[in-house]
Amino acid sequence: MSARILVVDDILPNVKLLEAKLSQEYYDVLTAMNGPDALKKVEEESPDLVLLDVMMPGMDGFEVCTRIKQNPATAHVPVVMVTALTDSVDKVRGLESGADDFLSKPINDVALLARVRSLVRLKMSTDEWRVRENTATQLGVVDESANVMEQSAEKANILIIEDKDFELNKMKQTLMQDHDLVQGVSNGPEALSLIKSQDFELLIVSLNLASEDGLRLCSHLRSNERTRSIPLVMVAGQEDMQRVAHGLEIGAHDYILRPVDRNELLARVRTQIRRKRFQERLRSTYEISLSMALTDSLTGLYNRRYLEVHLEKLLEKNIESKKALAVLMMDIDFFKAVNDTHGHKAGDEVLQTFAQRMKDGLRSFDLVARLGGEEFVAILPDVTTERAYMIAERLRRAIEELPFKISGPAGAISVTTSIGATIITADQPNVSVYTSLERADKMLYDAKAGGRNCVIFEGKGKLDPEEFKGAERRVIE
Amino acid sequence: MSARILVVDDILPNVKLLEAKLSQEYYDVLTAMNGPDALKKVEEESPDLVLLDVMMPGMDGFEVCTRIKQNPATAHVPVVMVTALTDSVDKVRGLESGADDFLSKPINDVALLARVRSLVRLKMSTDEWRVRENTATQLGVVDESANVMEQSAEKANILIIEDKDFELNKMKQTLMQDHDLVQGVSNGPEALSLIKSQDFELLIVSLNLASEDGLRLCSHLRSNERTRSIPLVMVAGQEDMQRVAHGLEIGAHDYILRPVDRNELLARVRTQIRRKRFQERLRSTYEISLSMALTDSLTGLYNRRYLEVHLEKLLEKNIESKKALAVLMMDIDFFKAVNDTHGHKAGDEVLQTFAQRMKDGLRSFDLVARLGGEEFVAILPDVTTERAYMIAERLRRAIEELPFKISGPAGAISVTTSIGATIITADQPNVSVYTSLERADKMLYDAKAGGRNCVIFEGKGKLDPEEFKGAERRVIE
Repeated sequence: MSARILVVDDILPNVKLLEAKLSQEYYDVLTAMNGPDALKKVEEESPDLVLLDVMMPGMDGFEVCTRIKQNPATAHVPVVMVTALTDSVDKVRGLESGADDFLSKPINDVALLARVRSLVRLKMSTDEWRVRENTATQLGVVDESANVMEQSAEKANILIIEDKDFELNKMKQTLMQDHDLVQGVSNGPEALSLIKSQDFELLIVSLNLASEDGLRLCSHLRSNERTRSIPLVMVAGQEDMQRVAHGLEIGAHDYILRPVDRNELLARVRTQIRRKRFQERLRSTYEISLSMALTDSLTGLYNRRYLEVHLEKLLEKNIESKKALAVLMMDIDFFKAVNDTHGHKAGDEVLQTFAQRMKDGLRSFDLVARLGGEEFVAILPDVTTERAYMIAERLRRAIEELPFKISGPAGAISVTTSIGATIITADQPNVSVYTSLERADKMLYDAKAGGRNCVIFEGKGKLDPEEFKGAERRVIE
Repeated sequence: MSARILVVDDILPNVKLLEAKLSQEYYDVLTAMNGPDALKKVEEESPDLVLLDVMMPGMDGFEVCTRIKQNPATAHVPVVMVTALTDSVDKVRGLESGADDFLSKPINDVALLARVRSLVRLKMSTDEWRVRENTATQLGVVDESANVMEQSAEKANILIIEDKDFELNKMKQTLMQDHDLVQGVSNGPEALSLIKSQDFELLIVSLNLASEDGLRLCSHLRSNERTRSIPLVMVAGQEDMQRVAHGLEIGAHDYILRPVDRNELLARVRTQIRRKRFQERLRSTYEISLSMALTDSLTGLYNRRYLEVHLEKLLEKNIESKKALAVLMMDIDFFKAVNDTHGHKAGDEVLQTFAQRMKDGLRSFDLVARLGGEEFVAILPDVTTERAYMIAERLRRAIEELPFKISGPAGAISVTTSIGATIITADQPNVSVYTSLERADKMLYDAKAGGRNCVIFEGKGKLDPEEFKGAERRVIE
């Protein structure tokens, strides 16, 4: 995949060397020769990757990386630090400033290009989600845009696949500093069986397993639907660089070379966990916006949009199943007076309590929605006439029986509801959503005109509360 | 990227050969030896790619491909047909049955692996969107899930970059059969300048340009943000296979070899256009769900959720800008009677017309929302007191002046509105969303109590319609 790469180094020949290598592979290359210029280019030109020299006069690479990662507008851009330093303390410092990888000079071309391809691929797959997250934030669907650096990098559930006990224990011990649950197994089949029953946030796979090819295990984990989205870190020997590069092509996210440095392991694992949680957060924004599209924000009930779509499906199903479906239209009596006397806040509280009592009084597969204002609808699929009467009466009584708590001096007030209802049987095949709601609505009008706080069913008339008092428990449960 | 690949061939050695090649590259390989078995595996095992032999006894490859592509559950799985046939008629037949590519036996490994990687990458990037589209469909946010084969493949805007006049004209003529606008240029700079001002749905790039490296142009087009998501088809000579493979790695979507067969060109272009439109459709589902989360479905106005988020921002801005902001709370007078007398359908029509007149009467940067029921809010940022009076009066009169058309025997009815309003000036710094709405709501209560069809501003009292009649035009426009 092509991409725009920013190369940052204060020494011109170094810049030229990297530029030539990347350009040869058909990347678009931008360059900067000092920290401030690099920061400016990252913000203005939105590169897909930054290759960043550590040792620069003035602002060094650590500082540049920290600033890129602290700026919400640029935190998502992957950074690979490049340095002559080989001390693991520097490496860890780089990773902790938010770098995605740390390569040593002289640069191994295979390692460089494999890394670049893998990071670019990751970035591309996240980019579209990120753009939409920003839209969602601007519109107020979510409070604040996710930032990869703000994600927690601790308390993850990690699985290590390593058959050398000493190495496994060392990694487990190390990771237990940050994480809750670190498990180890010695081969692929054991790993796959654990993965079936648990949700891992990171997999660490040895490329030096005695009984199987670790790279093939990585490949399998990356193509399996259950594990495809879990980050994967390879552990390999210094001599395995070609296989590591292949692993990155396959889709592994990172690697660490033996002997495993404890701090480097911790830092690399943190980076992966943060990124995984960032991606999850981006995806959940979509789910939130979907659910917002279908629910009423005040009561959490479904809205008219959802009701209409699903009532249509339920009506179809009703005919197929040869059963009956009840439509209950409900309205809070004298609701306007609640608002006028006790204020809108009290009014909102009444609506919320009303919604809660509806939910409590219905079966899990019934559908209850707020149409707007003080008007609600409940759909009861698969009911007998008798049972529909029961449920409607129970709902009416659930509102009347207990006062509604409200803020303000009154403390609590009495509320009642009127319910108009109709039953659609399978021998009425062409009843539309609109007709069924209208039929219930006419009954609601009669209930209002007939004194309120009552239930009227089409064809049956006003229910007598006395008639349903004793019978309810028996029939409903 | 690793992936699960289904190899379909009736001859065991062929299956084994492909399996070995792919397995060597660490793909997970599934196999099938006849059409029905292949269809079963595609549905049950969800492979990421199918390599499909054409010549099989019983159900042949064309039939298998057609069925995969006609089934909405499997249409998104890429199919590469593999055959000893070299007749371009067969090739085109394969592409027209929905195959994504057509490779000839003996298979060129470079071509095969480059193609597999490129198709797998495309599938992965679409998969997540597809899953969410399904969720959105189930919840009723969109009517029906998109299907790649159902997308129109015609009337696209296409740009060809080719410096050989004869070749360019041949491709243009051919593509004009299907498409509206096919333009040609002879070099990269011209292409880039056209792309700035037009939206193309497909780019065709010659890899044999005399004045520049076509592959570098492809790379640039793939890394440029404006062109990154436009499908790119390369045109190359038979001897350019290595460069074609490199182009696929860079992110080009397809290629066609010279001499260009007209039907093959048409078929490949159709496939790309369909896929592009499918992806756009998936993305637009997200936008739809976002906008649904923030708008009222009946009137198209913003909903309470949006109002609250944006009023908060507007209140902050109001303080910074040292200007004033007016909050108008509006309620349709005697709306309940409209529903009761003329039915809910008429009521809905009144709400829609009311919303439209509000929009017409406000400035483009004012915000109008439906709170629920017959209650609306308008926020007027950056107003003087006088202008706020004007606008409120104009809104009241816009409702009163003309009757509202409704379905049913009445035909049209008179409607009026009461408006309560408050002005938040910059010297009132700590006014919350809740307080500002409540202040306007109190005035609305007074307007209702004071006879309706009037405007009351906090601190000012009821406006005298006579006072604002002449002045309006002058001040507002």
